[in-house]
Amino acid sequence: MPRAVAGPEIERLIQLLARLPGLGPRSARRAALALVKKKDLLLAPLASAMTVAAERIVTCSVCGNVDTADPCTICTDASRDARTIVVVEDVADLWALERAGAIDARYHVLGGTLSPLDGVGPDDLTIDALVARCAGGEVSEVIIAVNATVDGQATAHVIMDRLAGLPVKVSRLAHGVPVGGELDYLDEGTLSAAIRARTPL
Amino acid sequence: MPRAVAGPEIERLIQLLARLPGLGPRSARRAALALVKKKDLLLAPLASAMTVAAERIVTCSVCGNVDTADPCTICTDASRDARTIVVVEDVADLWALERAGAIDARYHVLGGTLSPLDGVGPDDLTIDALVARCAGGEVSEVIIAVNATVDGQATAHVIMDRLAGLPVKVSRLAHGVPVGGELDYLDEGTLSAAIRARTPL
Ligand SMILES: [Zn+2]
Ligand SMILES: [Zn+2]
Repeated sequence: MPRAVAGPEIERLIQLLARLPGLGPRSARRAALALVKKKDLLLAPLASAMTVAAERIVTCSVCGNVDTADPCTICTDASRDARTIVVVEDVADLWALERAGAIDARYHVLGGTLSPLDGVGPDDLTIDALVARCAGGEVSEVIIAVNATVDGQATAHVIMDRLAGLPVKVSRLAHGVPVGGELDYLDEGTLSAAIRARTPL
Repeated sequence: MPRAVAGPEIERLIQLLARLPGLGPRSARRAALALVKKKDLLLAPLASAMTVAAERIVTCSVCGNVDTADPCTICTDASRDARTIVVVEDVADLWALERAGAIDARYHVLGGTLSPLDGVGPDDLTIDALVARCAGGEVSEVIIAVNATVDGQATAHVIMDRLAGLPVKVSRLAHGVPVGGELDYLDEGTLSAAIRARTPL
């Protein structure tokens, strides 16, 4: 068994860093070393940024975005089109669409997709809240921007069924999204094109 | 130009995370998102571990290791062989040898290698301090465990010249180390074998 290579403070830092996506045990050690070597330039500022984030970041009770305000900056931005809601699986997808500057609308974060094998049913997602937002009268269009996976498309159909009868137009992203692909990995041009060419359901 | 996708607190977190080795801009966003989604389980503990590390971690004035004590835990560990010093370029190499459990000796971190092209000369490394440690009388063997690169081997020769005349046996790692390879990427067996088969210079 490998020995601990540094004091408990550094070992704990390595263990926590290794839990970040994209960092394995070895790269977590490299990251920890880079941090302790750049104590004033990187470690202290990052510690402070994380402390601020941990204290101030909340989940938006309207759309599910993460921000320091509830409702979030997007939900309270009067310059955005409040009649259009883009439905995404995850905050990462919201960020990807915002980075692309794909649309100036509001969002709704589902919190995942239906996944019978994993025991994720409609009640585990924020579908009820989406229906309630659409029933309020202000929303006229819902763009379902879920991943082009089997679970994503099944989720899109359930949402479409739940919105049937409400006075909202429902569309999905155009088939610019590669089958089986995930939004967060697409380039901005593809995301923008997929929003522009959205097709009615 | 992509828009900022979140409040300034999250953007700052992303920017700082992107400066860690192994994380690019995209994986820094994923890491930031993972952090804010696991606020209590990951973000807050990591913020606190970093704050503790920033406050407590120092560079050992004897060997150049990073630790919360100066002299470091290794330098003050009476169970270690104080007569043998393993000379490494970087703290990452010290960690790699310790993980391998390759030897129970003390270390000396050079802080790099000689690199005329980058303007790194002998005075930019801790060679004088190494000579002083070896002149104290307690040290009987120096194992030069620098990378098997051209700069590393040139550095080894300069160190050997500086130690000539002192009553210390100087050796280098065995040729188990791949030519051009870096210590930190080697498996533990290779590192241990290279220590065992060290050859006199
Ligand atoms: Zn919101
Ligand atoms: Zn030390």
